[in-house]
Amino acid sequence: MAPLEKLIEFLRIPSVSADPAHAADVRRAAEWVAAELAILPHVEIIEASGRHPLVYGESLLAPGQPTLLLYGHYDVQPADPLNLWHSPPFEPVIKNDNIYARGACDDKGQTLILLAALRRLMERDGRLPCNIKVLIEGEEESGGEHIEAYVPAHVGKLAADAAVICDTEMFAPGLPALCTGLRGIVYGEIHVHGPAQDLHSGSYGGAAPNPLMAIAEILTALKSRDGHLLIPGFYDSVRTPAPEEIAAWASLPFDEEHYRLTEVGSPALTGEPGLDVFMRTWARPTFEVHGIVGGFIGEGGKTVIPAQAYAKISTRLVPDQDPVEAVEQLRKAVLAATPAGVTAEFRLHHAAPPSIVDPNHPLIAKAAAALTETFGRETVYIRSGGSIPIVGLFQRSLGIPSILMGFGLPDDNCHSPNEKFYLPNFHQGIDAVERFLLSL
Amino acid sequence: MAPLEKLIEFLRIPSVSADPAHAADVRRAAEWVAAELAILPHVEIIEASGRHPLVYGESLLAPGQPTLLLYGHYDVQPADPLNLWHSPPFEPVIKNDNIYARGACDDKGQTLILLAALRRLMERDGRLPCNIKVLIEGEEESGGEHIEAYVPAHVGKLAADAAVICDTEMFAPGLPALCTGLRGIVYGEIHVHGPAQDLHSGSYGGAAPNPLMAIAEILTALKSRDGHLLIPGFYDSVRTPAPEEIAAWASLPFDEEHYRLTEVGSPALTGEPGLDVFMRTWARPTFEVHGIVGGFIGEGGKTVIPAQAYAKISTRLVPDQDPVEAVEQLRKAVLAATPAGVTAEFRLHHAAPPSIVDPNHPLIAKAAAALTETFGRETVYIRSGGSIPIVGLFQRSLGIPSILMGFGLPDDNCHSPNEKFYLPNFHQGIDAVERFLLSL
Repeated sequence: MAPLEKLIEFLRIPSVSADPAHAADVRRAAEWVAAELAILPHVEIIEASGRHPLVYGESLLAPGQPTLLLYGHYDVQPADPLNLWHSPPFEPVIKNDNIYARGACDDKGQTLILLAALRRLMERDGRLPCNIKVLIEGEEESGGEHIEAYVPAHVGKLAADAAVICDTEMFAPGLPALCTGLRGIVYGEIHVHGPAQDLHSGSYGGAAPNPLMAIAEILTALKSRDGHLLIPGFYDSVRTPAPEEIAAWASLPFDEEHYRLTEVGSPALTGEPGLDVFMRTWARPTFEVHGIVGGFIGEGGKTVIPAQAYAKISTRLVPDQDPVEAVEQLRKAVLAATPAGVTAEFRLHHAAPPSIVDPNHPLIAKAAAALTETFGRETVYIRSGGSIPIVGLFQRSLGIPSILMGFGLPDDNCHSPNEKFYLPNFHQGIDAVERFLLSL
Repeated sequence: MAPLEKLIEFLRIPSVSADPAHAADVRRAAEWVAAELAILPHVEIIEASGRHPLVYGESLLAPGQPTLLLYGHYDVQPADPLNLWHSPPFEPVIKNDNIYARGACDDKGQTLILLAALRRLMERDGRLPCNIKVLIEGEEESGGEHIEAYVPAHVGKLAADAAVICDTEMFAPGLPALCTGLRGIVYGEIHVHGPAQDLHSGSYGGAAPNPLMAIAEILTALKSRDGHLLIPGFYDSVRTPAPEEIAAWASLPFDEEHYRLTEVGSPALTGEPGLDVFMRTWARPTFEVHGIVGGFIGEGGKTVIPAQAYAKISTRLVPDQDPVEAVEQLRKAVLAATPAGVTAEFRLHHAAPPSIVDPNHPLIAKAAAALTETFGRETVYIRSGGSIPIVGLFQRSLGIPSILMGFGLPDDNCHSPNEKFYLPNFHQGIDAVERFLLSL
């Protein structure tokens, strides 16, 4: 079966890790990955009670050669809002060189790049040119607790010279990129309790506190209209990137107006005044609200003051912010911003540190060379505004850097309806990973 | 069948007028009311395309006697959140002299007080002591467009000396009350559009506008933390109640701490500083948010910046605010409060004027006497913070005052889970209405 056929099969499994209703699908995806890794001498599915499985494989038959730890994830984001998809999210459709499906880019397509490169080498050469450990998780989109506990407990088993992660973007089509920095994250919920029960807004409006309004008041107390965070201490440990890094970003091919029109599509961009888009999205902490629950959202109108409400929120962290400290700062700021008449608490979902890798590491230089050769253009060093908690975990627990070879494109709609993956990147990605492994 | 058995039958019909899925139930409730009115010489179900029916009945066989227009509504609020009900909302349960069901108090129980008084008089005396017109609507909880069009077009048919409406509260158990003022309402939605599609908050946080955050910014720009509305011009035409009215309120039996603990149940009351609870809930405009839609509210976490979001909101209006002007003031304030990067619009659901009736009207004095005699305590004159748009409509179109004989209690949970009606009030209400009609 060709890699593309495999990708279609993989994408058909609705492995939404955040949704308990999809638990069986998540397991099916783990088994699919394990079957795919069965070309290696050793493969196992690693269970933990109440968690989605890890899939591990290894081939350690190249003595004296470096050892790489390949990482990807087989779980995907929820697909809703479903009504905005042009085709069903778990029925892949190919159109104009793109394959459309939830997880196409993030991260099934990119995970399969790693697996397909290994398979091609094994099937053609009967061996791998270096030592390979593969660890594929199923909770990247829902907190990653399993891998977070597993890695520190198995540092010997997972020991390697570097990790290779395909879960980031190229800066532009045809322009290969290595990602040297990721933002961390704190994700959680702000819960507000007001009246003992839902109240009639006619009878009680003017006397009873409204938890939805309290949510609005808390949110606006955490971030100003110009995008500046108002959480005390939040910027204290923010490190400004080195002048060379900022200069490198300035030379990237980037048209802000084109970005606004084609990627964001809003009347204007937002964010802290006086900072450019790279600085704002790669090197500054941000705060976003993802959903607000409470009151009445059905058809028609209901004049209710809800007893309670909550908001799903996250902040992105940058070097040298510490997630533990950030959680405490956020928690305190939520309490300080809570209006009279209600009680509020911050409930943490998950947190991950920001990460930075050294572009001068010899393995990273070899990866860049392989990318340059494959795409025929000089590889650029960029950062990503997203969070890949595993990078910090590998650094902390295994003491290894992560090589972030990303093959997504900015318009791939990761986490959005109509997620896609550009198929030439899928095929060239396999070539690049194969070339990189052969170069070691 | 005794009135209580009838009430149980009536409450079993889930006539949620705001929910198209309940259209057949709403019709069933209309037919139930028409059957109940069949004791009168003339009854009809009045249809209008796309609207819930009105039920009309009349008995004009008392020449020289006054004519009263009795009003009630057979539709109810949505029952959600269902999980907070102790028994299913449309399976009435009697406990400690209370009957629990959606619509028990608002307004099926109170509507049935009117119908049961008529039936008792007809069955006992074979005639009514005055001329009666009955108009029961099915859209009171969802905009009331049908009756709003019907009344001005049928002023001859509906001509009367006064309207009698049972849809308000007694001030306290055992203390009969006539309501002399109601707040008006503007109900609508604030819709915000930001990015062209949902975006990943990692990649775009710091550059893309967030419509949910914009909603929070707009809401907090419309109302300050201390409950003062910031909508320009909104207080300009607010009339302060007469000193005698304020003095009468001050003499009502009211313990603010008891009210906070037993009715509101929140850590503190809120609202404009320096004004007491009666002033804040009866005589001042207020602004509430009832629900916020957008982003991700499912299980787990999703790091999405949603493309759009909207909030269901309402304001309550007091004399002499004009709803048309209030809508324009609100619309302008929403636009002025809209942050950069998004577009916003206000979409009106419905609006109704505030209303005031003269406590010195002779029919109102007779109603007060009937209440005083039935309950054995002097009737008090109060206002209500809620909105009964029909009162303004009757005043404007028919030139008649409304006698608001309310039998609800403050803890009846109208519009909330576990709505109930205190059965002694149901029975004494029937007595009081009968006594009032006989006194004319």
